[in-house]
Amino acid sequence: MPSTMPPAVVLLSGGLDSATTLAIARYEGFACHALSFDYGQRHRIELDAAAAVAKSLGAVQHVVMNIDLRAFGGSALTAEIDVPKDRLQRDTGAPGASLQTEEEHIPITYVPARNTIFLSFALGYAEVLECTDIFIGVNAVDYSGYPDCRPDFIQAFETMANLATRSAIEGKPIRIRTPLMQLSKADIIRRGNSLGVDYALTVSCYQADEQGRACGKCDSCRLRQAGFVAAGVPDPTRYRPR
Amino acid sequence: MPSTMPPAVVLLSGGLDSATTLAIARYEGFACHALSFDYGQRHRIELDAAAAVAKSLGAVQHVVMNIDLRAFGGSALTAEIDVPKDRLQRDTGAPGASLQTEEEHIPITYVPARNTIFLSFALGYAEVLECTDIFIGVNAVDYSGYPDCRPDFIQAFETMANLATRSAIEGKPIRIRTPLMQLSKADIIRRGNSLGVDYALTVSCYQADEQGRACGKCDSCRLRQAGFVAAGVPDPTRYRPR
Repeated sequence: MPSTMPPAVVLLSGGLDSATTLAIARYEGFACHALSFDYGQRHRIELDAAAAVAKSLGAVQHVVMNIDLRAFGGSALTAEIDVPKDRLQRDTGAPGASLQTEEEHIPITYVPARNTIFLSFALGYAEVLECTDIFIGVNAVDYSGYPDCRPDFIQAFETMANLATRSAIEGKPIRIRTPLMQLSKADIIRRGNSLGVDYALTVSCYQADEQGRACGKCDSCRLRQAGFVAAGVPDPTRYRPR
Repeated sequence: MPSTMPPAVVLLSGGLDSATTLAIARYEGFACHALSFDYGQRHRIELDAAAAVAKSLGAVQHVVMNIDLRAFGGSALTAEIDVPKDRLQRDTGAPGASLQTEEEHIPITYVPARNTIFLSFALGYAEVLECTDIFIGVNAVDYSGYPDCRPDFIQAFETMANLATRSAIEGKPIRIRTPLMQLSKADIIRRGNSLGVDYALTVSCYQADEQGRACGKCDSCRLRQAGFVAAGVPDPTRYRPR
């Protein structure tokens, strides 16, 4: 009965991890309010993917929050820089760095204090919905270089959140739920596959075209392909013609 | 020498508390980057006041971040409600609830998880500026009803912030600075007065007109007037004709 399901906020990027997180939240019986961010991504394909995933997985609402961080100064946020390999692997289940490989230089849409800002909006949304559960698809296995994907960051955010709002203090504590935290990419894919996630709707590629079709060559595509192979699940990713 | 002053982020609403906080940060030797939020306030007077204060107190930059929380759903954010007395006294030095008294009902622009969201953006801005000090004019003396104005919330945010970013982990810890935390309104006014704050530029009134002139009658005006009286400082507030 949808009307008796407790609400939850689920951060949703349109990538593989956050889609799986949404499926898990729904499987646990939550009425899911998906939250995405428009922070000046290179193209809209991530947000289109998020909308398709939200619909496909029965989210009761999909909110896109506009945050224009260019006000902080352009050069630090979008710059031609050399990005180390580990940076290219960032796909934390929340909307984030949008990367495009061009020879050796990469224009990167960088979100400073990314998961802090995204979780803060999720906390505000949770306060409006009067709900206690916030889901985020962070993962400490493949992406340990990012401090704001680690369990101790999540724990500290939860502690702070429970001092921030009156409802939390009055006996409805906030829980930051990270069901993917200790899973490998293959584990994530197996879990999502068993829950009916249509991974064809998700976009991981840094060079996806305007139809969301992947290049099949970038580091993100290779990581994703390896995940499907290791999971023993057919890869439904739409690749563009070469 | 401005070029050798370390940068700091200062949350600035255009009210009395945040103006004083900015003056203190500058007095401590910081190159101040003021940060305000446009969250659909009833009128622009708060942001105009913030801009005037930033200029008057020598901020090196004033950034207005647009956050449109109406995406979370209108009724929870702007509603005709009865607001308890203590709610009317909210002036925490960061941009926030915008109130207007109309008989007994008050349309309130409510910002859920307010200081968490504002401080998260400040943390992102600090990451861009590579600075460690974030100033916010919260006060635990007059406004203890708000959980996100208390010292333990600020401490928890600081702990979280120092797990959130690489620079914090690598030996440049973030400090959330709350110089007004334990001051009375009179103490705040005395401190700002000694530092040359032009309080005529600041707006506290919930019913300020488009020129920023105060009503002189609402709870916020009365609290402010009492502060000037207790401080023994002439009240420079511009009141509109009755």
